[in-house]
Amino acid sequence: MSQPLVAIVMGSDSDLPVMHETSAVLEELHISFEVSIASAHRTPEEVQQLAANAASRGIRVIIAGAGGAAHLPGIIAAHTTLPVIGVPISAPPLNGTDALYSIVQMPRGIPVATMAVNGARNAGIFAAQILALENRDINDRLIEFKRQLAEKVEEKNKQLQQLGIDGYLFETRKK
Amino acid sequence: MSQPLVAIVMGSDSDLPVMHETSAVLEELHISFEVSIASAHRTPEEVQQLAANAASRGIRVIIAGAGGAAHLPGIIAAHTTLPVIGVPISAPPLNGTDALYSIVQMPRGIPVATMAVNGARNAGIFAAQILALENRDINDRLIEFKRQLAEKVEEKNKQLQQLGIDGYLFETRKK
Amino acid sequence: MSQPLVAIVMGSDSDLPVMHETSAVLEELHISFEVSIASAHRTPEEVQQLAANAASRGIRVIIAGAGGAAHLPGIIAAHTTLPVIGVPISAPPLNGTDALYSIVQMPRGIPVATMAVNGARNAGIFAAQILALENRDINDRLIEFKRQLAEKVEEKNKQLQQLGIDGYLFETRKK
Amino acid sequence: MSQPLVAIVMGSDSDLPVMHETSAVLEELHISFEVSIASAHRTPEEVQQLAANAASRGIRVIIAGAGGAAHLPGIIAAHTTLPVIGVPISAPPLNGTDALYSIVQMPRGIPVATMAVNGARNAGIFAAQILALENRDINDRLIEFKRQLAEKVEEKNKQLQQLGIDGYLFETRKK
Amino acid sequence: MSQPLVAIVMGSDSDLPVMHETSAVLEELHISFEVSIASAHRTPEEVQQLAANAASRGIRVIIAGAGGAAHLPGIIAAHTTLPVIGVPISAPPLNGTDALYSIVQMPRGIPVATMAVNGARNAGIFAAQILALENRDINDRLIEFKRQLAEKVEEKNKQLQQLGIDGYLFETRKK
Amino acid sequence: MSQPLVAIVMGSDSDLPVMHETSAVLEELHISFEVSIASAHRTPEEVQQLAANAASRGIRVIIAGAGGAAHLPGIIAAHTTLPVIGVPISAPPLNGTDALYSIVQMPRGIPVATMAVNGARNAGIFAAQILALENRDINDRLIEFKRQLAEKVEEKNKQLQQLGIDGYLFETRKK
Amino acid sequence: MSQPLVAIVMGSDSDLPVMHETSAVLEELHISFEVSIASAHRTPEEVQQLAANAASRGIRVIIAGAGGAAHLPGIIAAHTTLPVIGVPISAPPLNGTDALYSIVQMPRGIPVATMAVNGARNAGIFAAQILALENRDINDRLIEFKRQLAEKVEEKNKQLQQLGIDGYLFETRKK
Amino acid sequence: MSQPLVAIVMGSDSDLPVMHETSAVLEELHISFEVSIASAHRTPEEVQQLAANAASRGIRVIIAGAGGAAHLPGIIAAHTTLPVIGVPISAPPLNGTDALYSIVQMPRGIPVATMAVNGARNAGIFAAQILALENRDINDRLIEFKRQLAEKVEEKNKQLQQLGIDGYLFETRKK
Repeated sequence: MSQPLVAIVMGSDSDLPVMHETSAVLEELHISFEVSIASAHRTPEEVQQLAANAASRGIRVIIAGAGGAAHLPGIIAAHTTLPVIGVPISAPPLNGTDALYSIVQMPRGIPVATMAVNGARNAGIFAAQILALENRDINDRLIEFKRQLAEKVEEKNKQLQQLGIDGYLFETRKK
Repeated sequence: MSQPLVAIVMGSDSDLPVMHETSAVLEELHISFEVSIASAHRTPEEVQQLAANAASRGIRVIIAGAGGAAHLPGIIAAHTTLPVIGVPISAPPLNGTDALYSIVQMPRGIPVATMAVNGARNAGIFAAQILALENRDINDRLIEFKRQLAEKVEEKNKQLQQLGIDGYLFETRKK
Repeated sequence: MSQPLVAIVMGSDSDLPVMHETSAVLEELHISFEVSIASAHRTPEEVQQLAANAASRGIRVIIAGAGGAAHLPGIIAAHTTLPVIGVPISAPPLNGTDALYSIVQMPRGIPVATMAVNGARNAGIFAAQILALENRDINDRLIEFKRQLAEKVEEKNKQLQQLGIDGYLFETRKK
Repeated sequence: MSQPLVAIVMGSDSDLPVMHETSAVLEELHISFEVSIASAHRTPEEVQQLAANAASRGIRVIIAGAGGAAHLPGIIAAHTTLPVIGVPISAPPLNGTDALYSIVQMPRGIPVATMAVNGARNAGIFAAQILALENRDINDRLIEFKRQLAEKVEEKNKQLQQLGIDGYLFETRKK
Repeated sequence: MSQPLVAIVMGSDSDLPVMHETSAVLEELHISFEVSIASAHRTPEEVQQLAANAASRGIRVIIAGAGGAAHLPGIIAAHTTLPVIGVPISAPPLNGTDALYSIVQMPRGIPVATMAVNGARNAGIFAAQILALENRDINDRLIEFKRQLAEKVEEKNKQLQQLGIDGYLFETRKK
Repeated sequence: MSQPLVAIVMGSDSDLPVMHETSAVLEELHISFEVSIASAHRTPEEVQQLAANAASRGIRVIIAGAGGAAHLPGIIAAHTTLPVIGVPISAPPLNGTDALYSIVQMPRGIPVATMAVNGARNAGIFAAQILALENRDINDRLIEFKRQLAEKVEEKNKQLQQLGIDGYLFETRKK
Repeated sequence: MSQPLVAIVMGSDSDLPVMHETSAVLEELHISFEVSIASAHRTPEEVQQLAANAASRGIRVIIAGAGGAAHLPGIIAAHTTLPVIGVPISAPPLNGTDALYSIVQMPRGIPVATMAVNGARNAGIFAAQILALENRDINDRLIEFKRQLAEKVEEKNKQLQQLGIDGYLFETRKK
Repeated sequence: MSQPLVAIVMGSDSDLPVMHETSAVLEELHISFEVSIASAHRTPEEVQQLAANAASRGIRVIIAGAGGAAHLPGIIAAHTTLPVIGVPISAPPLNGTDALYSIVQMPRGIPVATMAVNGARNAGIFAAQILALENRDINDRLIEFKRQLAEKVEEKNKQLQQLGIDGYLFETRKK
């Protein structure tokens, strides 16, 4: 793959099943990326390096996923002026409310663009929306992507009109 | 002012005292913007027009502030592939928790980059971070802006070292 | 079935297992309805059409179910003066608190009649209560329906008096 | 005023400053109403009477406002098949979250149409939307009412375009 | 069993697995009770009768369990001056927070003694503590009951000292 | 005053303005009481003494008010089998949610009868309801007290019918 | 094992699976400890003894885990000036929010050092950090421990770079 | 003042009115300290330096206060093995719940000892409790300090016994 435009970072490999959705959607949109595990608390120097060098390495957007105290996105934002997108990851017992508050409530001056709890797929799409501003190909793919989102809803609606509620539930439960 | 790059939208003029911080920081960073009042519930067609035409009018980022059910940012995002930044605005009795949840919990496919409750200033800075990817001047101003943020903290710390806690509190209370 | 009086709308087919309770109770009460999937974020034009045309198509009440940011009921209400009933649908990790706040906290001027989280059955009953104001048959069926609700509680109470707590728990666990 | 179509009930006269918004909007829409204080806990028989007799007195919609444990709307709904609209009223220290949960989380079979916390004005509008189904005059007034809501937003937007943010804030603060 | 001193009421037979803990502990303490299903919303007259006649039937304490909107304990308290103990019962999606707020936040004048969410056993014990004020036998059993509570903790502690943590966990997992 | 039947305890004199409502209502009901300040954390031995000796001093009910971590009612309950009523007291920043959870979520075996946040008046009434079981005078006063509660609501309702909403609001604002 | 430096206390043996993590990490760090079950509500005298005698028995830090009303850590802190570390333990239905508030919101004068919900391992590490101030061996082990934490993150990151996301997820799911 | 044993850090001078309580109690206990302003987001290098060098400068405990996203205590803990005490500082609109979650929910391996929201005074006392383990003077002062806490409660109680509730409230309101 070519020079990565997006850096995906997560604090622990336990976040990978969620953050995998970010890399998957970036692949769908043909956007190059790198992915790494770096912890704001266990490997703070690596986080700092990664953030501080990202721009000079050609990275244009950083996506950081974290649960619990979830300091990773904010600390990355402290070390770069690149846009940083934060993904709060849910975990018992507070179910991601902790991570959401920790990521979204950043102080004046250092924003983190916060996605829904476990909203890793949307983080990739939002990164694409930023990159599309200067890349017509990505822009075209995003418009097509959005058209397909609508199409899928319309198809499901058509199927529902044909099958009725009971039929639709029966069909989808079979799968 | 030249062709606006950022569109600031809010659902009601009661949001203006908060959203004023967005326009103020964009002015500090010499970024052109437009501002309008349009309600997802009271003037939905205007919202749709505004969102659907934004890209062709040269807008690159949309910032939407809303309180309560706070559907405005999400509905704008439904009608554009431009990056949309949402600002939850606090109001009694739920203090912005309602707006925060309503803005951040967007479904798969349609992200809104959510800021802190009342985080209108950070919305402007995040828009600048996006624009800086393709505009060296904005980038330079952002780096300088971030340097000054640090400087102010350092100055306050110096003052604290000189005056001590009681002296510092005495001085700042005088102002 | 005759001309539908109630339109049931949901943002995704994943809401169908919950919203099925609405259609089921409307069938019990012999009230005609239509059902469709339309997303405030993915197919906003369809939502707008559906809402704006509902009254002229003979629809008298719209019931909209949605989870997460849950903008669907509010956006429908923006495009019609028909009564709109909203059903917040629970989903992890916020368990429907997000949808509840998003649906109930509508701004002045555009109400949505909010039901309990996952309260799809009550949405159908409330629609019937509205329709009963101008339809004596529905009214009679509602009164009978309410009588049966009471009867079932009384029967269970009788059974409890006969079997005692342990016996009752034993019998119901067998089923 | 003619035979009341809407009954407004509240548990305490301390709810009157909020519930006054319901009567005010009903007057704007030329809808006749009665208003009374009756407490689910202090005068339960009066509540029961009021609810059980409402339909035969010609009442078509009941609006009940309550704070704290807020049992009033649910108990009224227990004694009638008329549509009941509930208004959670905020009070320290739980700020209406208690009343919201208590009103909205009604069990299967007995719905209460819940409005926003302190959403008394919307309760009146929703009642009008129900009455409009069988009354063309109310329907016409509601459509005009909704048109004016949009107009006001558009006027404010025009003013904002003329005055700019600072000018607008200066003008509105003067008032 | 002799004349019941405690009335256990619940709104639905789905509350029985929790409320069974109340009857179990009353049996342990040799306190006579009756149990019934009566719904504040579906059989309000039965609830009113039950509450209003309780004192004259010799009932001294009423224990009411309810989930969701959970109006049952408060409505019972409205119709009697006997002490009423409320048990909030948890149910998804709000996990009993709704029932807790609905039961505990009673208005001035009409108290309900609220137990922990699902705290049905403690409701029985608290009823016994009330009855013990005028019944030396119950009082003696309660004191013995409390002594045994302490004894069980002490025995577990002794076992832990002998087995160590790993041994203790191994032993208890075997059971 | 004669031998106290109720002991009112609070953890700090800052709780006195709220707990004063308990003593006031006990005076209205002619029930003798004692009041003391004792802290579960700062004077734990005094709390233990007070609780352990209460029964032998003739106390029949203990009412404990506390804010924040609010351990006082639970610790008193640990040292007595007398009924203990807990009053969560609100304080910023958590507004009494902390105290409510801390008081109501007692473990199996040791109940505390929890009142509404700041529900000090109801604590006194609930104590009276317990004492009324063995004291006909208190019982008569409670029944009269409850009758007056209803009467006051009815009087306010009558006034509202005479004055109308605007007139009523005007009159009450004058006071 | 030698004279214990840390006392681990929990209110019930149901807390043992969580609190086992405290003893495990203390063993990893070669720190001697004792462990006991003692309940603030069921065996309050034992708790008081344990806390009051801890210092004279050579204990330097007390770690207390508790769920629900979770008074144990605070009551221990009331009886000693040794540092007390509290571990809120999650349990349905409130998932540890109750225990967190109850432990952390201690009044002025009597602190409890609160860990994350179920953060029993961190409680042991924090105790070690305190002991390391006067014990060079523990200090060296803690530094090595922290180095290994970083090393493990780095190793996982290396593996991720080699295997890619899909490969990594495949490998870890195999285990 | 001699070589500081405690480092007090806060992210902004707006935290000073709260954190002043930490320095005040350390002065009461004759414990030397330093105080500085350093922001995890605006001056991250200063924070890192401060944390990494603290041990070698003779600091034994670090106390960090922060509001909102409140990353400061966790980031300091990432760079040292000294005990770190975190003080969540309340600010509208989330009133410190955000800061509390962000500070307390630290991941495995890197604990922060969390105090109550705005619990700055207790942070100082807890630091003293740690230092008292190796310093008999501090230990003696802490024991005396705790004795005085009890004494003050007892004095207030005595006053209450003499003045009665009304008299006490009258006296304290005069002040």
